[in-house]
Amino acid sequence: MHRSRIGVVLIDHPPESYDAAAAFWAGARGSERGPDGPPAENPYESLDRLPGGVMLELQRLGPGTPPRVHLDLETDDVPAEVARVVALGARVVEEHESYTVLADPGGVPFCVVPVQRAEDFERHATTWP
Amino acid sequence: MHRSRIGVVLIDHPPESYDAAAAFWAGARGSERGPDGPPAENPYESLDRLPGGVMLELQRLGPGTPPRVHLDLETDDVPAEVARVVALGARVVEEHESYTVLADPGGVPFCVVPVQRAEDFERHATTWP
Repeated sequence: MHRSRIGVVLIDHPPESYDAAAAFWAGARGSERGPDGPPAENPYESLDRLPGGVMLELQRLGPGTPPRVHLDLETDDVPAEVARVVALGARVVEEHESYTVLADPGGVPFCVVPVQRAEDFERHATTWP
Repeated sequence: MHRSRIGVVLIDHPPESYDAAAAFWAGARGSERGPDGPPAENPYESLDRLPGGVMLELQRLGPGTPPRVHLDLETDDVPAEVARVVALGARVVEEHESYTVLADPGGVPFCVVPVQRAEDFERHATTWP
């Protein structure tokens, strides 16, 4: 048995639009950004959490990448969750050391990632047989 | 003064991939779909709510439209919320009778929509001066 939940909503932008988009979404949410944006080695910047503990994050993509919104499934067993969603019709796009990028049957990208926030995960994750 | 919140996460697919994607996401969430999918006159189908009352919905787009995920800002005053986010850097893409489609500074689409679920809105919306 393993568990998962929709843990993160990410708004992804290439460097060309990242700063303007990050300033916009922080303003739209009424949240403060850190002074420097995301560091080069970690392209993620947290905005704030939605009620219920779903995180809202910005991601700086590579140059020329189309901007988009994507979802992360947070799980206590990445290989088991990847196998579960592949059996439901997803396909694996890229395997990374700690997480996997997949696409739904129409090509919408999403990720399966390890537990990000233990307290919210414990409270809200669904157990799969 | 008006209020808004991120009220809906929508997974959008054209007819070519809608049914397979809807079956996939319902399975991924462990939720049951209605027997018929969305009726032609209303291309939205609710999956379930995330903890905290954010709705998860599927939308059937027009033929050939690229699939995507988008967010809805739910508000008790659509014109005031559109003005607020335009002042922050968004641009209006399409105005409909009850809602407005916009894009963030990098082109990511989102919508400003009237209150969808009064109880969750009352509980979680932010008041803007």
